Amino acid sequence: MSEGGVVQLELTFLGTGSALPSATRNHTCIALRLDAAVWLFDVGEGSQHQLMKSANIRIGKIEKIFLTHLHGDHVFGLPGLLCTMTNAVGGGNNREEESAAVSEEGSESATTTTSSKRPPLQIYGPSGTRKYVRNSLKSSYSRLGLDYLVHELLLNSDEATKTEEGEAHPNELQGTDLIIDTTTNSWSVFEDERCSVIASPLTHTVPSIGFVVTERPAAGKLNIDLAKPILERHKDVIASQLKIKNPMSLLAKVKAGNTVSLPDGTVILSPSDVVGPPRPGRKVVVLGDTSDNELIVPFCSDADVIVHEATNAKLSSDLRTTEEEVEKTTKDHGHSTPQMAGSFAKRCGAKSLVLTHFSQRYKGDKDEASLSVMREIRDLAVREFGCDNVTTAYDFYVHDVPRRK
Amino acid sequence: MSEGGVVQLELTFLGTGSALPSATRNHTCIALRLDAAVWLFDVGEGSQHQLMKSANIRIGKIEKIFLTHLHGDHVFGLPGLLCTMTNAVGGGNNREEESAAVSEEGSESATTTTSSKRPPLQIYGPSGTRKYVRNSLKSSYSRLGLDYLVHELLLNSDEATKTEEGEAHPNELQGTDLIIDTTTNSWSVFEDERCSVIASPLTHTVPSIGFVVTERPAAGKLNIDLAKPILERHKDVIASQLKIKNPMSLLAKVKAGNTVSLPDGTVILSPSDVVGPPRPGRKVVVLGDTSDNELIVPFCSDADVIVHEATNAKLSSDLRTTEEEVEKTTKDHGHSTPQMAGSFAKRCGAKSLVLTHFSQRYKGDKDEASLSVMREIRDLAVREFGCDNVTTAYDFYVHDVPRRK
Repeated sequence: MSEGGVVQLELTFLGTGSALPSATRNHTCIALRLDAAVWLFDVGEGSQHQLMKSANIRIGKIEKIFLTHLHGDHVFGLPGLLCTMTNAVGGGNNREEESAAVSEEGSESATTTTSSKRPPLQIYGPSGTRKYVRNSLKSSYSRLGLDYLVHELLLNSDEATKTEEGEAHPNELQGTDLIIDTTTNSWSVFEDERCSVIASPLTHTVPSIGFVVTERPAAGKLNIDLAKPILERHKDVIASQLKIKNPMSLLAKVKAGNTVSLPDGTVILSPSDVVGPPRPGRKVVVLGDTSDNELIVPFCSDADVIVHEATNAKLSSDLRTTEEEVEKTTKDHGHSTPQMAGSFAKRCGAKSLVLTHFSQRYKGDKDEASLSVMREIRDLAVREFGCDNVTTAYDFYVHDVPRRK
Repeated sequence: MSEGGVVQLELTFLGTGSALPSATRNHTCIALRLDAAVWLFDVGEGSQHQLMKSANIRIGKIEKIFLTHLHGDHVFGLPGLLCTMTNAVGGGNNREEESAAVSEEGSESATTTTSSKRPPLQIYGPSGTRKYVRNSLKSSYSRLGLDYLVHELLLNSDEATKTEEGEAHPNELQGTDLIIDTTTNSWSVFEDERCSVIASPLTHTVPSIGFVVTERPAAGKLNIDLAKPILERHKDVIASQLKIKNPMSLLAKVKAGNTVSLPDGTVILSPSDVVGPPRPGRKVVVLGDTSDNELIVPFCSDADVIVHEATNAKLSSDLRTTEEEVEKTTKDHGHSTPQMAGSFAKRCGAKSLVLTHFSQRYKGDKDEASLSVMREIRDLAVREFGCDNVTTAYDFYVHDVPRRK
């Protein structure tokens, strides 16, 4: 088999707050880095500012944007980011370009037509996403330096909103309407040589989506100690019949699943003898705002990491209320407590859980008082999860997803 | 005459950059404080973040928002600000509310319906403003804690976009369509006991507007040294016939333009004897992006302050280009150089000029290199203005507009 998946898979939390931004938490935006490529989940207002500050995420490397739902704190940064990406094609980030720019500025560069040289940006979101992006760009006379498509994940009750003639933005290519598969309650969103993405609806006050990114299985491990002597032993016949001087150059071919044989069919080295079984791909789950995520459970089993909101919590200092009361109010607003997140992670048999989307009163700074609150929130999730691998995210927190053994 | 105008009039520059935000300059947003009230001019992305950081501007005090034009770097912060204002009614700012909030959060408070207790927010902008605001709020399922109106300043070529039945957002009241007066090339935007606002179109790549805020004349100065002895001399008759024990309590009445007379008609003190002539009101001019502002000149004469963009400049270090070349490219993109701003201020006979909307390569920090560039930009404007009262704005710069003598 061919080498699938990616090498480096990591999440960067660019914004970890909920409805209101605060001095320590911006609106929601999560970047998933797949080697050099970047996928964003949600783009709250100010996400482009956070991206510029980020040490490891480059705006020009964004390939896909997934919107979990259309509440303003998750999408109001998208139009500005699209305009700024115009200035960041080719992987540059604005800070670099700023110092590089010496001639007079094309000024309103975010709104100037430039020819697109990169593949179109793929945007995925619930019904209404296409209209929102289109209207924002059209109202602001924005012309992008890249083309984009919006693929809508539609429920049976949603109206399809595909481009009607003459309505699209000049940079808009025709996206697809993905209708939910009601037997599995899911959408098959996307698949390439690295990953597949499946989505499923969540319960919230408006249509909300959870995304499951599953890496393709990686090639098994090559046992060098077994393979090298075999190639060494046949180096003369490899040189004379295959015209290959360095027999070790065949190691990569074998690892990629190819058999080394001579023109007469004699097998010199077969992958099955020296390459172990394929390693399962990693699974990353990013959920939108939710008070109930029953439908997505079957897709999340054995996840390496689950990103789950935990908007409100009952802290020990909250003497006027009970855990039950907080859970009820939180659910009434379409949200989750840390315990609900922990319980979900347990049901999925997840390896780790990252909590985010915190109320503005749970500060994301390093003050001891803030850290103490976040430890308490973490402990509430650990209690239900039954596993210690829980993190409360803060802005710019990077969560590595290590390769499976 | 009655006491008109305001006491404190000051501009706060919340964002001073152009198309791209940078680490030192956010997108355009300018706050005009009229005593406690706040009017905003433009709301680029991240303006709500800047407002939260501002020491002197409170989100809950915003009464009016003027949009000079609809380019994204001037309007992409508006939907988020409207949602956040929901949480800031009554003059609170979010930092205060954050520490005050101890019970579990109403979570998606930016999108929850709450009853409105404050006067509706007035928004003024070019054709398309109403649609932009409406679509952004509707797409994001936003329900505001305040109502709003959009008044559009229409050119003759613009289509009126008044609310059609069933189309408005639930918090949207019916705004007005202001058609340009083609004899004066202006709109009479607004008038109250404090100020009048006139607007006029500017040349840019899209419809752009300049706003002229003129304070009503203030009451003349009361000559206490003249007035006091007269009241003192008549204190007995004032006490017996007007039933006023403290004759000095009549000073405010006289200053407000009222004559003090006895029941039989005898005049004791007439304002004309002790109150000087009314002082002319202050004039504040805020221009949108522009490469030519000929039409607005007649309204800007004798302005106390002109806020003018100066996107690009020919610096001494730019050896590969000339002033003429930079001016041409700048104009081609619909923008101005510092010299163009200085020349405009001179034609208006302005008392002071503030430059803003700088290219991202003109940093707004306090590094000596940045300050040196900004001094050079300032000098280019001073040269044409013929007046030294020029400031290059930076984020959070506060410009006081002193009362006229």
